[in-house]
Amino acid sequence: MADLVTRLTAVLPDGAVLTDPDLLRVHQRDEADLVPYGTPAVVVRPRTTAEVVAVVRAAAEAGVPIVPQGARTGLAGAANAIDGAVVLSTVAMDRIVEIDPINRYAVVQPGVVNASLAAAVAAAGLRYPPDPGSWESSTIGGNVATNAGGMCCVKYGVTAEYVLGLEVVLASGEVLRTGRRTAKGVAGYDLTKLFVGSEGTLGVITEVVVGLRPAADTSLTLIALFPTTAAAGAAVAAISSGGYAPSLLELLDQTHLKAIEALRPMGLRTDAKALLLAAVDTGSRAAGDLAEIEAVCTAAGALEVFAATDEVEAAELLRARRLAHPAMEKFAADTYPEGSGGIIVDDIAVPRTALAAMLDGIEKIAAEYALPIGVVGHAGDGNLHPNIVVDRLDPDSVARGRGAFDEIMRLGLGMGGTCTGEHGVGLLKKDWLEQEIGPVGMAVHRAIKGALDPTRLLNPGKVV
Amino acid sequence: MADLVTRLTAVLPDGAVLTDPDLLRVHQRDEADLVPYGTPAVVVRPRTTAEVVAVVRAAAEAGVPIVPQGARTGLAGAANAIDGAVVLSTVAMDRIVEIDPINRYAVVQPGVVNASLAAAVAAAGLRYPPDPGSWESSTIGGNVATNAGGMCCVKYGVTAEYVLGLEVVLASGEVLRTGRRTAKGVAGYDLTKLFVGSEGTLGVITEVVVGLRPAADTSLTLIALFPTTAAAGAAVAAISSGGYAPSLLELLDQTHLKAIEALRPMGLRTDAKALLLAAVDTGSRAAGDLAEIEAVCTAAGALEVFAATDEVEAAELLRARRLAHPAMEKFAADTYPEGSGGIIVDDIAVPRTALAAMLDGIEKIAAEYALPIGVVGHAGDGNLHPNIVVDRLDPDSVARGRGAFDEIMRLGLGMGGTCTGEHGVGLLKKDWLEQEIGPVGMAVHRAIKGALDPTRLLNPGKVV
Repeated sequence: MADLVTRLTAVLPDGAVLTDPDLLRVHQRDEADLVPYGTPAVVVRPRTTAEVVAVVRAAAEAGVPIVPQGARTGLAGAANAIDGAVVLSTVAMDRIVEIDPINRYAVVQPGVVNASLAAAVAAAGLRYPPDPGSWESSTIGGNVATNAGGMCCVKYGVTAEYVLGLEVVLASGEVLRTGRRTAKGVAGYDLTKLFVGSEGTLGVITEVVVGLRPAADTSLTLIALFPTTAAAGAAVAAISSGGYAPSLLELLDQTHLKAIEALRPMGLRTDAKALLLAAVDTGSRAAGDLAEIEAVCTAAGALEVFAATDEVEAAELLRARRLAHPAMEKFAADTYPEGSGGIIVDDIAVPRTALAAMLDGIEKIAAEYALPIGVVGHAGDGNLHPNIVVDRLDPDSVARGRGAFDEIMRLGLGMGGTCTGEHGVGLLKKDWLEQEIGPVGMAVHRAIKGALDPTRLLNPGKVV
Repeated sequence: MADLVTRLTAVLPDGAVLTDPDLLRVHQRDEADLVPYGTPAVVVRPRTTAEVVAVVRAAAEAGVPIVPQGARTGLAGAANAIDGAVVLSTVAMDRIVEIDPINRYAVVQPGVVNASLAAAVAAAGLRYPPDPGSWESSTIGGNVATNAGGMCCVKYGVTAEYVLGLEVVLASGEVLRTGRRTAKGVAGYDLTKLFVGSEGTLGVITEVVVGLRPAADTSLTLIALFPTTAAAGAAVAAISSGGYAPSLLELLDQTHLKAIEALRPMGLRTDAKALLLAAVDTGSRAAGDLAEIEAVCTAAGALEVFAATDEVEAAELLRARRLAHPAMEKFAADTYPEGSGGIIVDDIAVPRTALAAMLDGIEKIAAEYALPIGVVGHAGDGNLHPNIVVDRLDPDSVARGRGAFDEIMRLGLGMGGTCTGEHGVGLLKKDWLEQEIGPVGMAVHRAIKGALDPTRLLNPGKVV
């Protein structure tokens, strides 16, 4: 190992090789709670593709695994370190190489922060839609590696839809270029999409060509409060089947409503069982579309509907949704006051028609396992995040949390759902991936992993 | 071989095994001209996944390759038979299994014709956008296997964007299910997209889950005629960078204009060097968007612009575009009157900003190789189809045609383009795929092919 550190120090610039124990600890894990992690032997922060190649070759020769990391905002443990591994952090590869406004693409290094790219392309009159919750800190490389989602997906899709091409350093140290910079192209196997979402197990992404869109029209926004989750689910189904194209269709359950009111009182009715937040960005049709969605919510039994009359009010309505995570963290801290509150953040997507049944099922599971479970999610996509609140210092509470997690997975898959809508597999969902795709699917995964990384150098133990 | 036919006859229903030499000849090739093909030993038309499994197992045991075929409307020879192979035609697998209007997906067998699916989902108030030129006869399985494009792509993308999941029979005879039926999902490697566009080289697609969209608004349409290709290219760049989202942005060059006027006089100005056809389907904004696009065309130097005032007139304008292929066939027949006229249909995509330079380059190549080359294409995507007209009975003419084809490929790749925008690799573009993606890209293709089809049973010699 000392040899490897010496070699890494020789091939990388000053300051790019970290061995300070405090810094190693910083790079142990992403934001997934209650998922195992190890301590790396060394953390490297290359700045160029050539430096990544040097790292991969050095690690391969030493037989030491590599764990690629972005901003470590992931929620499935995909970036969690392995004891003795090389953590390859891409955060110093943070250059926006090119923005082409006519051909509508940008070329970026993987360490560019999502919000930085969004701002840079907005300055060119364009838009990079993907907006994971972590967008102000997460990197494009991490977004691509996990195929990150966000609130925009109901209309604009997940990260994969915006990745036109990649540069990837393979386990062999060779540099692969995939995809294209043209608007259209179908040459050969879609290697680009194979690497998107592969969580660093097939190669290290060193450059990304992302497709851009015209700037969106201003959004009009409403919130609707429902007396039952069934009524909220019915409203989502009616909006989806009504031919509307909401740019946002989010759900908060009663646990979240109460937690948000406790964190920052906004006057939300906490007797409501669910809140829907909807937005449209359909230009001159937006006012009409919003009025129709309002009518759909009322017809589905909404207790109250508030439509924002201007952008300031719309931002107010969005604030409740944005407070979901800090509110649940405060709720966890209040529930287990010794600082031992932990949240298992789950992520499941079900057919939209199964939304209400899924919400009811989660409520029953919370009662059965005697744990608070708050649900927030991208209702328009059928993508829910049940947040299971446990006492991390109480093994029984943690065991019940894991039991509830498994029960939620089982319920969702039984409804024709998938074990991850946007957070990815990492370590958290490995068993459930196998449940979902079965032995043939797993065998194909292993065959591809074996073909591209025969010595299992790259992020071993994740996904497959 | 007799043994294999006996076994296939035993495992398939009556009429599903064809050995009549006339029928074998019918199944020799797709619509790619001047691309090699062989004669299969037997053609099978299974109706179920279980029957496909039986065919794959029987062929594997006999060591005989399988060539999957849809409606044979492909333009790259990907479905061309190999001497002595089993042709596995999916045309009898033509059931629409399910249409779910709320969750917005349909489940279909691969032999369902694109137009049949489009009609069925339209009856449910929804839309399946992909519209390859062959949509009235080509099958969804073939569309998926080649990742087919069409005129809608400038706004709605290629087939891949609509494939949520697949059922695939692997070379081992195992049945793989990929993807999902939910709106969103990122579980594991994106095997779905790996099979899309793999042209039958990795597995036989036996079921497809396609995502659906709300019905589109009525389109408004215009045509604009330009004195130079540079002016037309400038208009395309201005429309693309202006934030418009045309639902169609097509180009016809002067050769096509003249050919169309010769086939069916429509009063088009044949002194124009290029025609652009644009449409918008932006609802209540459409009229304003169309007027702005008209102004952009005029500012770019259009000789004339005609906007359709109603749907009948819009259909008239579309007719010129739809006549492109038959008009060029008549042109080829008129040019080489002994029935020996052949067309090498090319397919290249370049950055939109390179459109005008590409058109000029093709004109120079036509002069250099002394052959007529008509260009039609999806200008909004930078995707052009140069149609090289040769005398197929004159080896020198065919050789010049191939020379012009290679020259066009070289020019396009040099501009940052891709060797195929939507027709695929098949046999026609194999050498150019290698030029485009290089040795590392090819090695990764071969590694994946080897991992999934180690005995090279499935469509050997195509793509890789």
